[in-house]
Amino acid sequence: MENVDLNSVKSFVDTLWVINCAILVFIMQAGFMCMESGLSRYKNSINVALKNAADFGVSVVIFWVFGFGIMFGTSYKGLFGTDLFFLKTDIAEWMTYFVFQAMFVATAATIISGAVAERMKFVGYLLITILATGIIYPLVGHWAWSSNYLANIQGTESQLLTATENARHTGWLSDMGFVDFAGSTIVHSVGGWIALSAVLILGPRIGRYSEANKGKFTGSSFPLAVLGTLILWFGWFGFNGGSNGAMDDAVPLILINTFLAAAFGLLTGLATSFIIYKKPDAFYVILGPLAGLVAITAGCNSMTSFTAIFVGIVGSLIAIGVNELLNKFEIDDVVGAIPVHLAAGIWGTLAVGFFSNLEILDTGLTRWEQIKVQFIGVGSVGLFAFLGSYILLKILNYFYPLRVSALHEELGLNIAEHNAVSVEHDLISILDKQSKTEDLTIRGPQDPFTTGGVIGLYYIN
Amino acid sequence: MENVDLNSVKSFVDTLWVINCAILVFIMQAGFMCMESGLSRYKNSINVALKNAADFGVSVVIFWVFGFGIMFGTSYKGLFGTDLFFLKTDIAEWMTYFVFQAMFVATAATIISGAVAERMKFVGYLLITILATGIIYPLVGHWAWSSNYLANIQGTESQLLTATENARHTGWLSDMGFVDFAGSTIVHSVGGWIALSAVLILGPRIGRYSEANKGKFTGSSFPLAVLGTLILWFGWFGFNGGSNGAMDDAVPLILINTFLAAAFGLLTGLATSFIIYKKPDAFYVILGPLAGLVAITAGCNSMTSFTAIFVGIVGSLIAIGVNELLNKFEIDDVVGAIPVHLAAGIWGTLAVGFFSNLEILDTGLTRWEQIKVQFIGVGSVGLFAFLGSYILLKILNYFYPLRVSALHEELGLNIAEHNAVSVEHDLISILDKQSKTEDLTIRGPQDPFTTGGVIGLYYIN
Amino acid sequence: MENVDLNSVKSFVDTLWVINCAILVFIMQAGFMCMESGLSRYKNSINVALKNAADFGVSVVIFWVFGFGIMFGTSYKGLFGTDLFFLKTDIAEWMTYFVFQAMFVATAATIISGAVAERMKFVGYLLITILATGIIYPLVGHWAWSSNYLANIQGTESQLLTATENARHTGWLSDMGFVDFAGSTIVHSVGGWIALSAVLILGPRIGRYSEANKGKFTGSSFPLAVLGTLILWFGWFGFNGGSNGAMDDAVPLILINTFLAAAFGLLTGLATSFIIYKKPDAFYVILGPLAGLVAITAGCNSMTSFTAIFVGIVGSLIAIGVNELLNKFEIDDVVGAIPVHLAAGIWGTLAVGFFSNLEILDTGLTRWEQIKVQFIGVGSVGLFAFLGSYILLKILNYFYPLRVSALHEELGLNIAEHNAVSVEHDLISILDKQSKTEDLTIRGPQDPFTTGGVIGLYYIN
Repeated sequence: MENVDLNSVKSFVDTLWVINCAILVFIMQAGFMCMESGLSRYKNSINVALKNAADFGVSVVIFWVFGFGIMFGTSYKGLFGTDLFFLKTDIAEWMTYFVFQAMFVATAATIISGAVAERMKFVGYLLITILATGIIYPLVGHWAWSSNYLANIQGTESQLLTATENARHTGWLSDMGFVDFAGSTIVHSVGGWIALSAVLILGPRIGRYSEANKGKFTGSSFPLAVLGTLILWFGWFGFNGGSNGAMDDAVPLILINTFLAAAFGLLTGLATSFIIYKKPDAFYVILGPLAGLVAITAGCNSMTSFTAIFVGIVGSLIAIGVNELLNKFEIDDVVGAIPVHLAAGIWGTLAVGFFSNLEILDTGLTRWEQIKVQFIGVGSVGLFAFLGSYILLKILNYFYPLRVSALHEELGLNIAEHNAVSVEHDLISILDKQSKTEDLTIRGPQDPFTTGGVIGLYYIN
Repeated sequence: MENVDLNSVKSFVDTLWVINCAILVFIMQAGFMCMESGLSRYKNSINVALKNAADFGVSVVIFWVFGFGIMFGTSYKGLFGTDLFFLKTDIAEWMTYFVFQAMFVATAATIISGAVAERMKFVGYLLITILATGIIYPLVGHWAWSSNYLANIQGTESQLLTATENARHTGWLSDMGFVDFAGSTIVHSVGGWIALSAVLILGPRIGRYSEANKGKFTGSSFPLAVLGTLILWFGWFGFNGGSNGAMDDAVPLILINTFLAAAFGLLTGLATSFIIYKKPDAFYVILGPLAGLVAITAGCNSMTSFTAIFVGIVGSLIAIGVNELLNKFEIDDVVGAIPVHLAAGIWGTLAVGFFSNLEILDTGLTRWEQIKVQFIGVGSVGLFAFLGSYILLKILNYFYPLRVSALHEELGLNIAEHNAVSVEHDLISILDKQSKTEDLTIRGPQDPFTTGGVIGLYYIN
Repeated sequence: MENVDLNSVKSFVDTLWVINCAILVFIMQAGFMCMESGLSRYKNSINVALKNAADFGVSVVIFWVFGFGIMFGTSYKGLFGTDLFFLKTDIAEWMTYFVFQAMFVATAATIISGAVAERMKFVGYLLITILATGIIYPLVGHWAWSSNYLANIQGTESQLLTATENARHTGWLSDMGFVDFAGSTIVHSVGGWIALSAVLILGPRIGRYSEANKGKFTGSSFPLAVLGTLILWFGWFGFNGGSNGAMDDAVPLILINTFLAAAFGLLTGLATSFIIYKKPDAFYVILGPLAGLVAITAGCNSMTSFTAIFVGIVGSLIAIGVNELLNKFEIDDVVGAIPVHLAAGIWGTLAVGFFSNLEILDTGLTRWEQIKVQFIGVGSVGLFAFLGSYILLKILNYFYPLRVSALHEELGLNIAEHNAVSVEHDLISILDKQSKTEDLTIRGPQDPFTTGGVIGLYYIN
């Protein structure tokens, strides 16, 4: 009985760690929000912020209703889960795992929002979120991760273990030996694939690739975008650390590899921008560490720090290259979601095959077999996520055009989609009303902290 | 002796959890700051930000000096505590509890700041903070929570337990069986009641309900407000999770109920704004999840997730309704503090009576008795908090008018209360000075990143 | 064997605590970023933000390569460490300690960035970061902290302990009995000394002390600066709490002393600004709590709360005084880094000698001996950090001028150093291009959420 108590205390330590990490992953929503809102133009910044809050609501609700069941329920031939809907369980370990996984699905969803920013309807975005978190993510998640579920549960009743042994909870990819520790493929590249199919269907923003603009739009606030990047980095400690499922001696190395890959990714971004532009480019300083983080996510527990650094550097270079490539082909990804989450995610997952310690992976495969399986995983998940979302979005787009009208796009989605105004806009309305009514007693906004307000304060009344 | 060690390790696990949660509750200060500053106009945004920092300082100092003693000291007839002033104790468990509770009192205080924004004197606000955190909050807190204190302490010396048995540390409401797990009433509705009495005394902002404005002022930054909302949500995991006082199997369900209520609250806000305005309204996306969070706070540990969702949805609807009602009666609450914290807080506390698992509540009451007690708790706390603060603020307002002058209000509190300027204001001053002195060598602010600076750069010099 | 298991569970609890604290210290990067970006003018805000992200990358890489080895490797005569480069170790406890210490070195580095803001070259700043984190910080860190390292490791193999006994891992200052619990001197004053030597070499910003400006520049966003202050405060719980190296009964008092010193520091800042300016000054509300936090960092585990409060109040007063003094001597520190981190850091370290509980310090020294040793520590670290950085920067400045050109400074570092533009700047370019080419079909930025965009929307096209 003594032993049981010690086990239960250890189990509470693990629960505490996983729950803390889940809470850290939650705040990544704020990170994405700041990053994407800062990189979007002012006239769309409110729309971007609201999307990032709303998709969390949609995705965790979907996940609770059936996503978690499809992903982790008793497997039907390794393809999808068939129970655990509405999280019907009394077992605390399952609840803990649900908390952690619910934060993950929200991350996968929110990756898309930045790519499609500034021209997509709000409702259309919510529909994509449902598609991503209700169908695509839990299915590929089942293929690769449903067996992790059991490995993470400690001290559960024998009844449960027997039941699951019988039910064969494992997806076909994990059965083959595919390894994606914290989701370079399952979370990040899946989000990236859906983002890619969405931006292909939406097309680029008006004027983005016009002669005059030279592919540059000015974001509303780089400091906000950098704040978002740092918040994402902060949350990533939980993302990768919590994927260990327990507090044990593996955790410190996971965190070290995580921040070293990010740090080298950042320096790579800096160095590349020095070489290309002779100046440190703000966007590269954001792309770099995020690409490093995405790349190391799949193998942070199974690589030496030297390898992690290599993975981070190459991930950063790949993201920068893909970013240039997308612009060359005029594929308009507002925040670099595809380079960072898709491209670096693929690289990181393949890198597990090439470089990870096979003993830690513990799949029983040889090096070449592991490499092959990683390619199969990346390919099958990519094919399914991209084609699935492309076809479904094409159909959806046919019945409900996902893109806002050109007028709304020029006007900005803050006003067009949310009736949200600004002091500057207030001023225009007042001037308009004055000229129409010739009633000069209508007063403008008076605020010595905004230019619109200053004009209102001094010249109108 | 073996057993003692295991107990002490478990006790450290609990301490770690509660302290982590306390730190999460701390960051809610930043959440309130961002949310309230973002929803206020630019000319008052600095004032709002400073109030949110300053009230933390005031409230924890007050709480340390005597608030904690009134709330958790040896009870005088169940009405107020009589010792523990200046936190005179060597027991680590009491200190841990103080850390957690000090973050709570700061939350209760800061709820008020948003409601009274844009027209209240800074010093007046500090006086309200003293009133709220030194008198009202610790008194009602004693009534309802002083016995929780003991339940949370594990492994303390028998001397302590005997002392407290004798002293009857329990407040009259908890003796009756009133349950408010993490403070829907004690923290949120108390903050809301004081906010209500303050805005009634202050009156609405100039022009808020004028014909021209139609009850709308444009906030300085919705992205900042959404960031604040997400930070609050983040902190709420600690708010509700830490109220468990230990890391045990109850924690995962508490967190799940917390984020499900918030997520459904958010979707309710979205859906309601679609119905009313045909568009997703930014303010409702903020109100919704916060109302869900406040509502589930009282019963997150004693409800099924289905009930928690219902509580969140209804909480969100109530908050939206009360928000409309306040505007109808021209009661001006800048950030929706009263709908969210007061209205949803009352609902959440009553919901415990209606829906919570009586075994988990463990009050020994029948369903109807529990409902009755919840009404008594909500009513007595509300009556005391509202009347007490109304009377004290009326008296205070008589000797020291709490509202700034109309001129200061128009000018904005950044300048009026803090001499804080802006680039736009700098420009005005320079233009003014040039015209008066006819000395055109006076230079304006030169900053190609602000319109004022652009004018300064190109037209003045 | 039973015992070993319990020890390992306790060790995991400690690891969890230290790692959580390290993650909290990480987010201080975002705190510094927001605080410094908010206090800088718009035209430099992107530059400031990028520096705060980039220095984290540089400093943790340097620290991993050799900084950690110099600081904690086997000591050469108590002066510097000689191994552990590239963190070559398999011991999880060392890795945990590395995670925590890597976040510390990044904090020391980022302190400097605010002081030198708005006129230093980006590359020059990266060079200072290398100097600070590769040479100065790890050397003085070795003197004072290398023995802490061992004290923090629990349950390690006897092999390790024997090896380290033989190698004498202790620096000369810790051998003397110098105590700086969480780094008032080693982290904060070191950052402050380097900042001082840098601003002396750089000189003040153009116009800062001109007749017209009266020493005032208007920061880009006080709400952002207050957000930064609150994030720093949040992270400081990890900074001081994690320095305990374990989760035990000392932690709650450490946190209480930390937030009480900060809270009283804040109130002191408020009170002082009321006395001097008759109004609560925004900058003092930021300086106050930060100075209180820096001051209590050295002794938060060895003082009563009453003493901690005294230390916080005096720290706040000293910071405010030094801030005035710097302005009097026209030493231009943009964000008050020197008053806060250097001045309050010195005070806090000396206060340990005067007021700390000698039993807790456990140095075997008498009161007067302890005071003397604290002075020796503060003096020797200060002399080395200031002179070392001053000489090295002078040499560096000779070959590579650290200051940007006057033109770049006026233009702002966003554009000059990063080619980062703004909507306002876009507008200027368009107007310019239109007037040169007489091609009125060139369109301006169209954004009803910015004044520049409004002008572009209504008047150009």
